[in-house]
Amino acid sequence: MNSKDKFFVKIKDGKHICVGLDSDIKKIPKFLLKYPDPVYEFNKIIIDSTLDTAGAYKFNFAFYESNGIQGLTSLKKSIGYIGNNNFIIADAKRGDIGNTSRMYALSIFEFFNADASTINPYMGFDSLEPFLSFTEKINFILVLTSNPGSNDFQKLKTNNGLFLYQEILNKINSWNKEKNCGIVFGATQLEEIANNMDRLNNIPLLIPGIGAQGGDLQSLIKLLKQNNYRNFLINSSRGIIYKDSTELFGEAAREELLKLNNVIT
Amino acid sequence: MNSKDKFFVKIKDGKHICVGLDSDIKKIPKFLLKYPDPVYEFNKIIIDSTLDTAGAYKFNFAFYESNGIQGLTSLKKSIGYIGNNNFIIADAKRGDIGNTSRMYALSIFEFFNADASTINPYMGFDSLEPFLSFTEKINFILVLTSNPGSNDFQKLKTNNGLFLYQEILNKINSWNKEKNCGIVFGATQLEEIANNMDRLNNIPLLIPGIGAQGGDLQSLIKLLKQNNYRNFLINSSRGIIYKDSTELFGEAAREELLKLNNVIT
Repeated sequence: MNSKDKFFVKIKDGKHICVGLDSDIKKIPKFLLKYPDPVYEFNKIIIDSTLDTAGAYKFNFAFYESNGIQGLTSLKKSIGYIGNNNFIIADAKRGDIGNTSRMYALSIFEFFNADASTINPYMGFDSLEPFLSFTEKINFILVLTSNPGSNDFQKLKTNNGLFLYQEILNKINSWNKEKNCGIVFGATQLEEIANNMDRLNNIPLLIPGIGAQGGDLQSLIKLLKQNNYRNFLINSSRGIIYKDSTELFGEAAREELLKLNNVIT
Repeated sequence: MNSKDKFFVKIKDGKHICVGLDSDIKKIPKFLLKYPDPVYEFNKIIIDSTLDTAGAYKFNFAFYESNGIQGLTSLKKSIGYIGNNNFIIADAKRGDIGNTSRMYALSIFEFFNADASTINPYMGFDSLEPFLSFTEKINFILVLTSNPGSNDFQKLKTNNGLFLYQEILNKINSWNKEKNCGIVFGATQLEEIANNMDRLNNIPLLIPGIGAQGGDLQSLIKLLKQNNYRNFLINSSRGIIYKDSTELFGEAAREELLKLNNVIT
């Protein structure tokens, strides 16, 4: 099953919650520190506890890179542990000139064997093209992010009367010939989601920002349902993985995931 | 000596060429493949041959990440080999929400111990702030890049009559309280450099795009001199490191660097 198929199987099964493995050695339960690779142990338990219910797993590369070589080793092993039938997002937000972006794409799709990337559009089409040339993957392009800084540039008005992020949405629609573009759109930006249904155009959405960042899941789901928008993953990281700091953290994560799923269905 | 001081010492010494170590195991001289870590061997010889003349070394992270854990090990060792008196740029173009960008900053400034980063401004101030909180480092923010895709968004006109990249330049001037911002501006964008001298405001410039990408060094130097702009590094990667594929590649790299230096002085 190729990566795009994996995404659509999960969506068809009603599995829309993406478990964000922002695993930080300083925040995982202390009893795990006795293992040789505590972050990997932590991820394994979260994965075991959520595998039948999760729509996807998203690895935030920063949390692994901050631990250097050891962190990247944990990342590689954790991705391998998930197995081939699940949809894995490498959240690394890369973007560079063409010959460099190609190297980033090789890292993400070949070395780490992820199903999907997140990529930054600021440098334009030739910076994204090496990712888009992997036609069986999904590439979630940053459009309107969940953070306060999204106002700085993403919401600047261009002389076409559009917000910058809308110009990017228009381009994504023109770049999506292989149907392997996705869109990152923050859950904190409900009004903007509502105002751009035509531009979003049922392209796969990756929606971060519920929970710690303040996005409201119920309102988001209502809006997506009203518009019959099915191709979406809603990410929750801290809200799921750090729900409990005892030996029961896996079960607590599972319960939180089921709770989020109940809001959706 | 802190990182900012290292930059200004090199500038004062007239050392403006940044050696870009985009070291690709497929492109380095074949005889190096007998070593356990060929990329590290390659970098050591380039570094030994250029250390007295280079203004900086720039590591393009993509080329190392594409080789996975082994690549990042080569990267870490190569940075360590350069030593403390030289200015080292981690060209990783990171950017994410605050708590994530903090992790990227820890990776770059603490694990890899670089003097400078390149960062992507698309997600706005709070995505850059964790880098800027390292007040003794220099953070080169992408403004106008050297690639064709720079036309897609960076040169969109906003309703203020400015290009998007000029809006970013204005913001950088307001964010630069600790004098630790830098600017990435492509050598292929000469006219735009000329038109924005006030906004560039003598902030440290990292200028990629000469050589393989088509930027003309002589015209660039003439323009910078006319404007008495001293705080700049001009990057050359492929043009220096792949000048020769025999045992003499180190000397060839040195000659090329001296040639570029002669254009500058």
